[in-house]
Amino acid sequence: MLQSGISLQGVMAVPSVLVVAGTHGNEVNAPWLLDRWNQDPELLNSSELTVNPVIGNPAARQASCRYIDRDLNRSFRADLLALDGDAPRPLEVVRAQELIAAYGPKGRVPCQVAIDLHSTTAAMGNCLVVYGRRPVDLALASLVQGSLGLPVYLHEADSAQTGFLVESWPCGLVIEVGPVPQGVLDLRIIRQTRLALETCLASLAAAGQAEPRYPRSLVVHRHLGSVDLPRDQDDQPRAVLHDDVLGSDWRPLRSGQPMFDGCSSDPWPASPQSAFDGGIPVFVNEAAYVEKKIAFSVTQREVWPVLGDWIAALAELMRG
Amino acid sequence: MLQSGISLQGVMAVPSVLVVAGTHGNEVNAPWLLDRWNQDPELLNSSELTVNPVIGNPAARQASCRYIDRDLNRSFRADLLALDGDAPRPLEVVRAQELIAAYGPKGRVPCQVAIDLHSTTAAMGNCLVVYGRRPVDLALASLVQGSLGLPVYLHEADSAQTGFLVESWPCGLVIEVGPVPQGVLDLRIIRQTRLALETCLASLAAAGQAEPRYPRSLVVHRHLGSVDLPRDQDDQPRAVLHDDVLGSDWRPLRSGQPMFDGCSSDPWPASPQSAFDGGIPVFVNEAAYVEKKIAFSVTQREVWPVLGDWIAALAELMRG
Repeated sequence: MLQSGISLQGVMAVPSVLVVAGTHGNEVNAPWLLDRWNQDPELLNSSELTVNPVIGNPAARQASCRYIDRDLNRSFRADLLALDGDAPRPLEVVRAQELIAAYGPKGRVPCQVAIDLHSTTAAMGNCLVVYGRRPVDLALASLVQGSLGLPVYLHEADSAQTGFLVESWPCGLVIEVGPVPQGVLDLRIIRQTRLALETCLASLAAAGQAEPRYPRSLVVHRHLGSVDLPRDQDDQPRAVLHDDVLGSDWRPLRSGQPMFDGCSSDPWPASPQSAFDGGIPVFVNEAAYVEKKIAFSVTQREVWPVLGDWIAALAELMRG
Repeated sequence: MLQSGISLQGVMAVPSVLVVAGTHGNEVNAPWLLDRWNQDPELLNSSELTVNPVIGNPAARQASCRYIDRDLNRSFRADLLALDGDAPRPLEVVRAQELIAAYGPKGRVPCQVAIDLHSTTAAMGNCLVVYGRRPVDLALASLVQGSLGLPVYLHEADSAQTGFLVESWPCGLVIEVGPVPQGVLDLRIIRQTRLALETCLASLAAAGQAEPRYPRSLVVHRHLGSVDLPRDQDDQPRAVLHDDVLGSDWRPLRSGQPMFDGCSSDPWPASPQSAFDGGIPVFVNEAAYVEKKIAFSVTQREVWPVLGDWIAALAELMRG
């Protein structure tokens, strides 16, 4: 019996999958899982796909921080990837170039799919992040959501946040698990990461088979925008998130509900009506977004039919 | 009417209190509270004591990390404080020297009491940390515990952990609140910090009055030692904390209960009998202790009678 992923006279060339952990150096659970998996292949079911596990940012992992020079997961931008060695490049730009040279679709070990494993301090549970509307990504997310019911955060149309790793591969998404503080190992986070990763791999394997079992629809939470804390003239937060917002990821905001609390005896004035009324918050109090001045992002829940085009695109990709 | 804390012809000299926030730069809630308090004195009741609020490690706060060169709250060691400027000193040693020169009992703005505000990623709730058995500290902890019921972690006899800030003042303790990830503002943490600080200040003010209301006994959780994760030959964790241990701060360990989980199909072997059986874990999965190789510390619950000597010592200190 042939091992999947081994190409034999062009008959069979199931694409390899790149699995990245530690794209942010202080998100430690997925790297721990990949390290243990390297030592014990039984730890994680890869559905007989050829999987290349890699640590995204080893230097930041070593330093126990998110990044050294700049966020690696905002460094896969065409303008940055085009920088050559004539001028000093941020460490993470060099690393992005290395990862593409090694594992990109035309790399030394070509991979067609990238699964990027993250954790968050927000109470997001186990979820998927999809960037834009590539049919292959939506097909993969549909299969995983059909299996596990995970919510999907569709990130798009945000000019302040670009250059995500998975966008440099033909197909890819992020598995995001929380809440967990940066820097600590947590069994629940590890287990949820493993479950989502195994399901992604099983879904990819199934997508190239005769009859993958797709759900009829995909529920996405589409990114609308982000909300910052109110700030004073020194750019410091004058108020913090209200109790009702803290930990409320995936729960719709009520119109006019208090969003902030100044901690004084006077209640913080209600936010004015905005385009976010009725929106659904995600990444509430994510520690890494403090520097980006994002207290939470706001999404809109939408139900999309799973299209035949998505299914066909992922089938074609996975048949090699 | 005289303002408390103003010395008048030697008749009245209620000691000043130093309140430190941000001794660790990524514990952001207490610094936020002190900043807001500076702008709105109504935010926090100081019981008419003279309080000097200060940011412990402004450089680390600016850099959003625990410390720059070394842990400031392990830098108040006699050998480090004796270093002079002839040789390069770690930034935090310089800062420790500055704080003592400014606010030490013989400093430019002399303070007799130091309250040091911290947060933790562990599910410690609102609690006090006392270092050693100074009668004044035990008296203060008794009054606060009598008012709020907060648990007290008595840290002593740990040669690996020395040089705590409050030990450089005649009286002092740490207020420790969690769980909260490093770097994020959380209203619950801010409120608990404020409540504990207000109660410390009210207790100090009362201690110098005619009839402070002490409880009969003080419950302490006395430090016995610390537990690391099991490690492989590369010094990497082979297992993580078991579900039953995670989040179990202040709950007694059962004899032989599983402490770790290797995430494989085989359960991790139970730990051998140890002096920690029946002990009570604290600081379970504190992110800052990963580098110190402390997965949790173990304590023993003890009930001590509140002694007249403690009461007299704190009364004497607070009467100036």
